[in-house]
Amino acid sequence: MKNQPLQPMALTMGEPAGIGTEITLMAWANKHDNNVPFFLIDDIDNVTGIRNQINIDTPLIRIETPDDAAQVFANALPVLHQRRSGKTTQGIPSVDTAPSVISSIETAVRLAQSGKVGAIITNPIQKSVLYQAGFNFPGHTEFLGALGGTKSDPVMMLACDKLRVVPVSVHISLRQAIDVLTSDLIFKQARVTWNSLRSDFGIKCPRLAIAGLNPHAGEASSMGTEDEEIIKPAINALRDEGIDANGPFPPDTLFTDRARPTYDAAICMYHDQALIPIKTLDFDQGVNVTLGLPFIRTSPDHGTALDIAGKGIANPQSLLSALDMASQMARCRAAARY
Amino acid sequence: MKNQPLQPMALTMGEPAGIGTEITLMAWANKHDNNVPFFLIDDIDNVTGIRNQINIDTPLIRIETPDDAAQVFANALPVLHQRRSGKTTQGIPSVDTAPSVISSIETAVRLAQSGKVGAIITNPIQKSVLYQAGFNFPGHTEFLGALGGTKSDPVMMLACDKLRVVPVSVHISLRQAIDVLTSDLIFKQARVTWNSLRSDFGIKCPRLAIAGLNPHAGEASSMGTEDEEIIKPAINALRDEGIDANGPFPPDTLFTDRARPTYDAAICMYHDQALIPIKTLDFDQGVNVTLGLPFIRTSPDHGTALDIAGKGIANPQSLLSALDMASQMARCRAAARY
Repeated sequence: MKNQPLQPMALTMGEPAGIGTEITLMAWANKHDNNVPFFLIDDIDNVTGIRNQINIDTPLIRIETPDDAAQVFANALPVLHQRRSGKTTQGIPSVDTAPSVISSIETAVRLAQSGKVGAIITNPIQKSVLYQAGFNFPGHTEFLGALGGTKSDPVMMLACDKLRVVPVSVHISLRQAIDVLTSDLIFKQARVTWNSLRSDFGIKCPRLAIAGLNPHAGEASSMGTEDEEIIKPAINALRDEGIDANGPFPPDTLFTDRARPTYDAAICMYHDQALIPIKTLDFDQGVNVTLGLPFIRTSPDHGTALDIAGKGIANPQSLLSALDMASQMARCRAAARY
Repeated sequence: MKNQPLQPMALTMGEPAGIGTEITLMAWANKHDNNVPFFLIDDIDNVTGIRNQINIDTPLIRIETPDDAAQVFANALPVLHQRRSGKTTQGIPSVDTAPSVISSIETAVRLAQSGKVGAIITNPIQKSVLYQAGFNFPGHTEFLGALGGTKSDPVMMLACDKLRVVPVSVHISLRQAIDVLTSDLIFKQARVTWNSLRSDFGIKCPRLAIAGLNPHAGEASSMGTEDEEIIKPAINALRDEGIDANGPFPPDTLFTDRARPTYDAAICMYHDQALIPIKTLDFDQGVNVTLGLPFIRTSPDHGTALDIAGKGIANPQSLLSALDMASQMARCRAAARY
């Protein structure tokens, strides 16, 4: 059985006024031996400009199709050229470049869907200017879901070496997060997570820890009834499907050194219940993984960092981790095909 | 200027069916050189029984008054004898011993109020049996507040080497925690914290970080209005009093390695926002400190651990940390008197 060469990975431009371009240049310079070759979808002239500005010697090479990426990757960062609309000023996002930002994402998805790329890694976007340009999605994840044509909502996972967490809701108020919490929501998000742990992370029998909502997981409904009435039924339904789900666990002790090795992912009941522990444990290496899409997608777990853009001081660590994770996931999916 | 000898510290018995007695015996055996002498308020016969059961050679000595503790502390764990009501079976709390548990706390407070002890450290209690015995308080902290005659509610701080956190509400549902959140509550808890950081922790100009409630601290009210409407006014009011308070900060990045050195305590908007990061960072050494009482009070940051009681395998680390912190606080208060 001979391994087929892996398809290359596509990296989107992200907000051009942010740190995306420079961390991409740094990431190529610091790439790991086992990284699947990747290429950037951006305007090669603008990328060259940033390269000279931050004084990094990453060689660039313009490619015409993704197929060319693997061949040149060892010697230069391949750039699938796409002209940038508008002018870019570092630190100041402009609505004029928004169409290019969106187009870069669309190109990546199109290539993934046609089997030309094995994974998409997205640089951070600046939502405010995209909204002004008519972008109609809460964020990257929902846009990718719409482009990918998924039936159910995609699921956001944050992952680092020490922990994987999935918040069942994301960018809504804490009060709304409680309001939208249903057994069905928890069940669906947990099942997508479980499937992805098997197909993309190579874990045969994933163990899911389901967090409680209230302090001490409600302590037998003495502090809130959701743990008993909403979360427990979801756990039972997951188990009925043969999924190794346990909980609801008191949230405060679920992320300790002792607890973490007992599960492969924690399903969390709101944004900060998931993000506080992972960012506290590992701020620089956290990766955002979107589960439930027809393709692999990861992204660095930070924003556009406009305040330091163009200065060459941004930290490429999270992007490197996103490239590492996408590489592993792509290998895992490819291996499952043989 | 000659330093007066410090008053000894009183350690309460806690739930006799739990691990309190054995971790006390272990803590004395592992005591640190700079620990202020402490004594246990318990039945010396029962303590002797546990000592023999878990096969530890901590010598015990019965003392008649706290004044005797300092003299004998180097050679034996001083026990201020108080007869236990009822029989104790390890792992099975009984309502019969509840009066002794309560009485041990009352004795400690009485001694603190009469100036005979410099700090109280409480072993964990089993609330369910205390309730059966007519105990009428949500927990230790409120009971101590009532005994201590504080005007405002005492404030719970969790502290370890890496972090100090104060949740503005504690044992209520997450939904209720949002409902009870007011500028006044945040202001009061932050002010008690600030005063205590000055008087008990020796920090001249304490810096308070005020956490947001919603993801990204609401992102300009796009995800919940509480950050702007409730938390910001509290911060302004604190600043008007000359208190160095900042925020509201996005909760997920407030506890990273980079953020923690920028403040002396984080004021958190609900139980798990405070407890998740500190337990994730340091499960074994977390200490519970009650601020706003007329006396110093710390306790280990864990429960009665009935499942392992009497087996000699409990970890005394958190109690040792509680003794260390009480010692430091007692020194700090004593120094302020000269």
